[in-house]
Amino acid sequence: MSTLRVAIAGATGYTGEELIRLLLNHPHVRLTYLAASAKWDRPVPVSQVYPRFARKLDVSLEALDPARLIESCDAAFLALPHGAAMELAPKLLQAGKRIIDLSGDFRLGNPSLYPRWYQFTHAHPELLTSKRVVYGLTEYHRDQIKAADLVANPGCYATSILLAALPLFQQKLVEDGRLLVDAKSGLSGAGRKAETSLLFAETAENLRPYKVNSHQHMPEVLQEIQRVAGATPKMGFTPQVIPIVRGLMSNLYVKTSAGADRIAAAYVARYPAAQAPFIRIRPGSLPQLRDVIETNYCDIGFVHDPDLGYATIGSALDNLTKGAAGQAIQNLNVMYGFPETAGLL
Amino acid sequence: MSTLRVAIAGATGYTGEELIRLLLNHPHVRLTYLAASAKWDRPVPVSQVYPRFARKLDVSLEALDPARLIESCDAAFLALPHGAAMELAPKLLQAGKRIIDLSGDFRLGNPSLYPRWYQFTHAHPELLTSKRVVYGLTEYHRDQIKAADLVANPGCYATSILLAALPLFQQKLVEDGRLLVDAKSGLSGAGRKAETSLLFAETAENLRPYKVNSHQHMPEVLQEIQRVAGATPKMGFTPQVIPIVRGLMSNLYVKTSAGADRIAAAYVARYPAAQAPFIRIRPGSLPQLRDVIETNYCDIGFVHDPDLGYATIGSALDNLTKGAAGQAIQNLNVMYGFPETAGLL
Amino acid sequence: MSTLRVAIAGATGYTGEELIRLLLNHPHVRLTYLAASAKWDRPVPVSQVYPRFARKLDVSLEALDPARLIESCDAAFLALPHGAAMELAPKLLQAGKRIIDLSGDFRLGNPSLYPRWYQFTHAHPELLTSKRVVYGLTEYHRDQIKAADLVANPGCYATSILLAALPLFQQKLVEDGRLLVDAKSGLSGAGRKAETSLLFAETAENLRPYKVNSHQHMPEVLQEIQRVAGATPKMGFTPQVIPIVRGLMSNLYVKTSAGADRIAAAYVARYPAAQAPFIRIRPGSLPQLRDVIETNYCDIGFVHDPDLGYATIGSALDNLTKGAAGQAIQNLNVMYGFPETAGLL
Amino acid sequence: MSTLRVAIAGATGYTGEELIRLLLNHPHVRLTYLAASAKWDRPVPVSQVYPRFARKLDVSLEALDPARLIESCDAAFLALPHGAAMELAPKLLQAGKRIIDLSGDFRLGNPSLYPRWYQFTHAHPELLTSKRVVYGLTEYHRDQIKAADLVANPGCYATSILLAALPLFQQKLVEDGRLLVDAKSGLSGAGRKAETSLLFAETAENLRPYKVNSHQHMPEVLQEIQRVAGATPKMGFTPQVIPIVRGLMSNLYVKTSAGADRIAAAYVARYPAAQAPFIRIRPGSLPQLRDVIETNYCDIGFVHDPDLGYATIGSALDNLTKGAAGQAIQNLNVMYGFPETAGLL
Repeated sequence: MSTLRVAIAGATGYTGEELIRLLLNHPHVRLTYLAASAKWDRPVPVSQVYPRFARKLDVSLEALDPARLIESCDAAFLALPHGAAMELAPKLLQAGKRIIDLSGDFRLGNPSLYPRWYQFTHAHPELLTSKRVVYGLTEYHRDQIKAADLVANPGCYATSILLAALPLFQQKLVEDGRLLVDAKSGLSGAGRKAETSLLFAETAENLRPYKVNSHQHMPEVLQEIQRVAGATPKMGFTPQVIPIVRGLMSNLYVKTSAGADRIAAAYVARYPAAQAPFIRIRPGSLPQLRDVIETNYCDIGFVHDPDLGYATIGSALDNLTKGAAGQAIQNLNVMYGFPETAGLL
Repeated sequence: MSTLRVAIAGATGYTGEELIRLLLNHPHVRLTYLAASAKWDRPVPVSQVYPRFARKLDVSLEALDPARLIESCDAAFLALPHGAAMELAPKLLQAGKRIIDLSGDFRLGNPSLYPRWYQFTHAHPELLTSKRVVYGLTEYHRDQIKAADLVANPGCYATSILLAALPLFQQKLVEDGRLLVDAKSGLSGAGRKAETSLLFAETAENLRPYKVNSHQHMPEVLQEIQRVAGATPKMGFTPQVIPIVRGLMSNLYVKTSAGADRIAAAYVARYPAAQAPFIRIRPGSLPQLRDVIETNYCDIGFVHDPDLGYATIGSALDNLTKGAAGQAIQNLNVMYGFPETAGLL
Repeated sequence: MSTLRVAIAGATGYTGEELIRLLLNHPHVRLTYLAASAKWDRPVPVSQVYPRFARKLDVSLEALDPARLIESCDAAFLALPHGAAMELAPKLLQAGKRIIDLSGDFRLGNPSLYPRWYQFTHAHPELLTSKRVVYGLTEYHRDQIKAADLVANPGCYATSILLAALPLFQQKLVEDGRLLVDAKSGLSGAGRKAETSLLFAETAENLRPYKVNSHQHMPEVLQEIQRVAGATPKMGFTPQVIPIVRGLMSNLYVKTSAGADRIAAAYVARYPAAQAPFIRIRPGSLPQLRDVIETNYCDIGFVHDPDLGYATIGSALDNLTKGAAGQAIQNLNVMYGFPETAGLL
Repeated sequence: MSTLRVAIAGATGYTGEELIRLLLNHPHVRLTYLAASAKWDRPVPVSQVYPRFARKLDVSLEALDPARLIESCDAAFLALPHGAAMELAPKLLQAGKRIIDLSGDFRLGNPSLYPRWYQFTHAHPELLTSKRVVYGLTEYHRDQIKAADLVANPGCYATSILLAALPLFQQKLVEDGRLLVDAKSGLSGAGRKAETSLLFAETAENLRPYKVNSHQHMPEVLQEIQRVAGATPKMGFTPQVIPIVRGLMSNLYVKTSAGADRIAAAYVARYPAAQAPFIRIRPGSLPQLRDVIETNYCDIGFVHDPDLGYATIGSALDNLTKGAAGQAIQNLNVMYGFPETAGLL
C-alpha cells in the first residue's frame, strides 16, 4: 500500500495532539503538515511544542495557511474550534482533498439547527445535505464513509451514547420513547482553553454539571437515532466534568421489559467482534474508565432489573481517542481502504 | 447550657476524624473518649494520629473498651464497621447512654433485610422496631430524634437521595413510581481500608461503577419513602467512585409533568430556610460539589424539561459531613436541645 | 474586647477567599467590606460567589472603591495583584487605616530591587524604609508589627523557608554560607488566573519547575536572613508546581557539622510552644503536607547525616493559610492585641 | 531477524503491566509466558486482568511455575518483589535462559550490603561478583550487557540520578565530593500493594517524604559512581511521594564552578543523540514530567548560578518506563542485538 500524505489543522489542541500520537504509529500514513491558528512568525519544531514526539517526527508546526495545507496533503484532519472548518472545508473539497472534520460544523443535516445549538448560521448549508458529507459513526456508516469526501466525526458524548443506544432502538427495545443519559467527562474534553473554570484549583476535588438538557451533542444523537433506527425519542442529558484528564462515561437509563439476554443479544448481534473490533460488550456490570484510556475501545456494559423494568447501560471510552482522534483515524482507514484497526491497536 | 461529655468509638476512620474536626468547634460538647479497634498497648496522643488537631484536644486515642466508654461519656458516636455497633449498642443503652450510630446496623426496621443487604443476621432485632431507635434523617424526624436513645444516622448516598426525593413523593409529583439515581462519591466514602482497588494508582484517572442496583443504601431509601410519603417506588441506583477525596453527588431522574414552578414550590415549602438551615434549593441548574465540601449543606438543584416530562434533580453534599459526621452532630443537637446548627456553620 | 471592622480588597482570589473563611470564625473581627477589581455593576451577594459561606455572612462583594473601603473599615487586608497595593495603600494610611498587604509591594526595603524582581518601579519608595511598614514574619517581629501601620505579609515560599532557616543562621550553624532550597507548591499558589499552563489537563499528572534561582521570593528571604541573623548567604532555589490545590513544602539543604541534637535545640529554643503556637518541630523525619492543610501550622522536621555533613530540613505549610491569609490574621491579632491564635485554631 | 520468546514473571504489578504494554509493540519479541505469584487455580485470560490489552495478546496469566517458565521462553523479565528473583534466577541461568531482573536482588556487587539495605542475606553472593551479572544502566554498560546472562535493571530513582550525575563526576566537575538529591515519584513506584498509606484518600492533596538518606537505591548510585567515574561522593537523598500515577523527578544539587557551557558540554559529549537516543539535554531550565510520561526518555535540564557556585540539575523520567520496563527492554535489545530503540519509540 502506498503512503497517504496527511495534514492536521488544529494541531495544538488536545485532539490534534492525540491525532499526532496515533498517526505516528500508523503504517500507511505520513504526517506532512501540522498547522494551528496560533500566530507564529515561522515554523516551530514539533519537539518544542510536544517534546514527547521528538525524534519521531520531523514536521514543524506552522500558522495555518490554506494554500500550504492543500499542497501538502491528500487528506486533512480538521481539529479546529467550532465554526472554523465551515469556512475552510469548501476550499479543500474544491482542491480535491478529502476531509475528516472533528468539529460540529458538519454533523447536523438540518442547517436550521446551527443557530440554536452552535450559535452561528451555517455558511454552507448545501454541504450539510450533500452526499459528499457523511456522519462518521464508523460502526454504522462504513459504506457511505468509504465514498465520502468529508466525514463529520461525531462528538465524544454522542459517540458513547449512540454506540450504546442504537442497537436498543433498532431492536425496538425502548418502550417509552425516552433516553435518559447521565454522562461524565475528563477536562481534556473542554479543550486547551485559558478559562478560569478549567483551572486545576477549580476542578480538582469537584464535579460540575453543565448544559443540562441543552448540550450541543444532543441534536446529533437524536438525528442519528432517527436515521439509523427510525425512532424519535425524547432525550434527557446531564453532562458533567470530573477531575480526570481523559475519559468519558455515559450511563443510559432505558425503559424496557426485554430481559438481560435479549439486550445482550442485541449488542452482540450488532457488534460481532470480527466486524466491530473496537466495541466490547460486557453484560452484567458497568465498565470502568481505566480499561479504555488511550485505547480506541468503547466498552458497553449493562444491568437489567426486571422488577424495575429499566436497563442501565454504561458506555465508556476515551474522549480523545474513540471520542475524537481515534474514531477519526478509523474513518480515514475506511475511506482509504486501510484495515480498520490500522494504527489503532 | 452545660457541656455534654461525648465519646467516639471508631475515631481512626475518615468519619471518626470528621467527627473530631467538627466537635472541636462545638460550643456545648466536650470530647472525653476516643477509641478505635486498633490494638494499641496504651493510649496514643491524638496529635500523633492527627497532627492537625494538635493543641486543640488533649484526649488520647485508645483501644475500644466498653466499660471505659460507658464511664467516660453521656452520649456516644459509633463510627464502627458494619456489624460492630449491633453488639456494642445494647450495652450502652443499658447503661443509660444515648447513641448516634453511623453504621447501617440500626437503619432498617425489618430485620429480615440484613442478611441480604449486610451479610449478617441481626443480633438484636427487637431494637430495630423499638421506639427508642430512630432513623436520623434530621429534616424529617426531629420530634422522634429528640426522644430517641439510639439514632441510626442515614447512609451518605441515602441522605443525598432522600432529601431530594421525599418532597416530590410527598407532593405526589412522581408519576410512574420509579426513582432512577446516578450517583458519584469520593474515595473517603469507601473508608480507610487497605484494599488494592482503593489505591491512588488504581483510582486516579478512573471512574468505577459498582453494586449497580444492589447497594446497601437502597433499602433505607425505599423504607423511608414509604414511611414519610406512603409511596413504594421501584428504584434504579448506579453508585460510582470518582477520583476525589470528599463529596457525593446524586442525580435523580423522575417522571413528572409538574412544571419547574411546582417542583420549586415543593422544595421551598418542605425546606424553609428558617427550619432547614442546611438545605439549599437552586432551581434551574444542578449544583457542583465544591460548594458543599467541608460544609453540612445539601445543595439541591433541578432542571425540568416539559417536553421530556422528566425532572433531573442534582443533590450534592459532603459524604463525610452532611453524609455522615455533620448530620450525626445535627442529630445530637436535636437530641439534646442544642441549636440545630451548633458546631456546624 | 470590641469588634474590629475589617475589609478585604481582592476578595475573589484564593487568598481573599481564605481570608473570608478564617475571619468568619474570628471572635473579635467583623467583615464589613469585600471588594474585588472585577467590574460589577452592583454589589453581589457573597453567597453567589462563594456558596459555602452562605448564611454565615451578609456582606456583598462589590467593585473596589477606595472611598467606600476607607469609610467601611478600621483595618484592611489587601490581597491584590502585585503593583496594586502600592497605589492604594498610601490613601488608606492617610485616612488612618491600618493595613495588612499580602502582595509583594512592601516586602523589600530596597526600592531598587523592584524593577528586577517585580518588573515595576516602586511609586512610594519612602514607605519601604518607613518604620510604619514592617515585614510581617510574625514569629520574628511581634513588637514592630504591634506598632506598624502597614504589615507586608511574607510570601508563601518565603515564610516556609525563613521559619526553617532563621534559627540555623542565628545559631551560626550554617557552615558554607549557602542555602539550597527545593520547594513544591499547589496550584492555588498561582492564583485564580485564566492561564493555559494552570489548566487541570496541563497540571494533573505533572510536576513543573519554574523560575529556578530567579523567583521573586528570594530577595525577601535574603533580606530577612541578613536583618535577623546578620548573615548574607547565597541562595539556590527551585520552586515547583505539583498537582495539589493547597500546600507548600520547602526542603532546605544546609552544610553543618552540628549534630541532630544541636539542630533540634536551635529550633526548640527559638520556637517554644507557648510563644510560637503555630510552629511544630519534628526531629528525625520530614513532615508531610496533609498534617498542615487548612491549618496555620508550619511543621519543621529535619534529618542530619553526620557523615554527609548536611542537614535536610523540611518545612511544610498551607500556602493559603500560614503562607498567606492565616499569617495575615496572625499579624492582625498582634497589631490589635488579640490573642495570637484568635480565629486560627 | 527471528522472533525472541519472552516471559514475564510478575506480570500483575505495575512494572509487569508496563512490560506487556511495551512488548506488544516490539517487532522482534513474542510474549510466550505471563506469570504472577497470585494463587490462580488455572490460567486467566490477560484481557480479564488487563482489558486494555484485549485482542492484542492471546497469552494467559498463570501462577508462577519455574518449569513452565523455563520451557516457554528464551529470555525472562523478572518483575517480582525484592528477594524472589534471588531464588528463581539461578534455576533459569542453569537452564541457559537470559534474564533481566527488575528487582534489587542483583544490583549490588557487595553481598554484605543486602542485610542493611534490603533486609535479607543474599542466597547467591557468588552471582553478585560474576561477570555473567551486569548492572543494566544501558548508556554506560552496553558491551557488558551484550554479553551478560543476567542484567540487574537499575532502580527508578537510581536511573534518574545516575544519568544526570555520571557525566559530571566523569568530568570531575563536582567540587566538594557531595551529591544532594531531592526526588519526587508517583504512586505507581510503590507498587500495587494493599497498604493504607497508598490509598487515594491518603495521598491525594499530599506530599510525603520517606526514607530520607536511607533509601535502598542509594548504594547502587554510589557503587555506580565509583565504578564509572572513580569517585566516592557522599550522598544526601530525599525521596518524596506526590499525587501522580507515573513520573519521577530528581533534582541534583552539585557544587561546581564549571560554567553552564562546560556542564552542557559534559552532557552533550556523553550523550550524543545518535548513541544515546533516550537522553535529551535541555540547558537553561529544568524539565517537566509531562514531556516524558509513557516514553523511555530521560530529560536532563540544568541551571548553573556562577555566584552561588552550584548547578541545579533536573532529571525527569517515567518511573515505569525508563525507570523500569522501558530500560529493561532497552537492555534486552542490547543483549540480543536488536536496534536499541526497538519497541520503545
